[in-house]
Amino acid sequence: MSEPPRTEPPRAQKKASSLVLVNTGEGKGKSTAAFGTAMRAAGRGWPVCVIQFLKSDRWKTGEEEAARTLGIDWWTLGDGFTWDSEDMERSEAVARAAWVAAVSKIAGGEYRLVVLDEVTYPVTWGWIPEADVVNAIRSRPPHVSVIVTGRDATPAIVDLADTVTEMVKRKHAFDSGITALAGIEF
Amino acid sequence: MSEPPRTEPPRAQKKASSLVLVNTGEGKGKSTAAFGTAMRAAGRGWPVCVIQFLKSDRWKTGEEEAARTLGIDWWTLGDGFTWDSEDMERSEAVARAAWVAAVSKIAGGEYRLVVLDEVTYPVTWGWIPEADVVNAIRSRPPHVSVIVTGRDATPAIVDLADTVTEMVKRKHAFDSGITALAGIEF
Repeated sequence: MSEPPRTEPPRAQKKASSLVLVNTGEGKGKSTAAFGTAMRAAGRGWPVCVIQFLKSDRWKTGEEEAARTLGIDWWTLGDGFTWDSEDMERSEAVARAAWVAAVSKIAGGEYRLVVLDEVTYPVTWGWIPEADVVNAIRSRPPHVSVIVTGRDATPAIVDLADTVTEMVKRKHAFDSGITALAGIEF
Repeated sequence: MSEPPRTEPPRAQKKASSLVLVNTGEGKGKSTAAFGTAMRAAGRGWPVCVIQFLKSDRWKTGEEEAARTLGIDWWTLGDGFTWDSEDMERSEAVARAAWVAAVSKIAGGEYRLVVLDEVTYPVTWGWIPEADVVNAIRSRPPHVSVIVTGRDATPAIVDLADTVTEMVKRKHAFDSGITALAGIEF
């Protein structure tokens, strides 16, 4: 039990024209929170795009369907689960091509929010140079916000972010043997 | 650097007809991830409702606007920031009334997903009995999933959840004096 706060917290003073958010950690909700932000931005009339670096277009999700309704541009540019890959060089090339697309979407300034979903994995695997991600975000047009999701966000990406949340798993249905539920988890 | 995983993780076997998710902790993304899940569920054609226990209808957000486009029923049933309240008994009564509405929406079975946004706060303040929240969730119709958000989720609520994520703040723009950005943060 505690008392409801009666004193307003101190107010921040600086206005940013854009923000860089990182959702990392082992827990659930990294991509989902990014999609929630994409929905919020779309609700404000922002042009928004989501680039998925692992999901392939063979995998249809509820979030992609909803995003289309909201006018969010949604690209599943990945090659699917790495354990399903029959050709890792191809998977790597697919990730690099997704990165080329991402760079032009960030730099183009057409979007006010670009979500780089699960981009940390191809960075960790050495498929996309970390320095390229840092440069693309750092040199973005001032009105373009960027969200990075995925485990093990590297220190340089964390450094340039305004807000970094670590999603920590306290409990997961999967650990009780429960399969992912369509509608809730994809 | 690490290698991409080449072995499929073990598969879960049990199918749940619904799930209970809790997003708690001091970090960003608790409500936002719940909204992302609401968007995903709506994308699958699920009837979804969101009940906000603190936000009042004087405060318009991007997420509410997007949710209406997606056909999500969205109720801001709170009384606003407690530090703005001129009558805490009224604020408490407003929260209790929101809880009555929530109970009927969970029990009614009309929705496949009910989001109880920021419900942990009125529970922590003693405005809504924790046992009532536990009972409402435990006795829900089997097809109704529930998401609870807010700091300090109580042990009994954590116990009955299938999946619990703690959002941990690693860094927040606010701490650098940057105000909340419409489109990204509300």
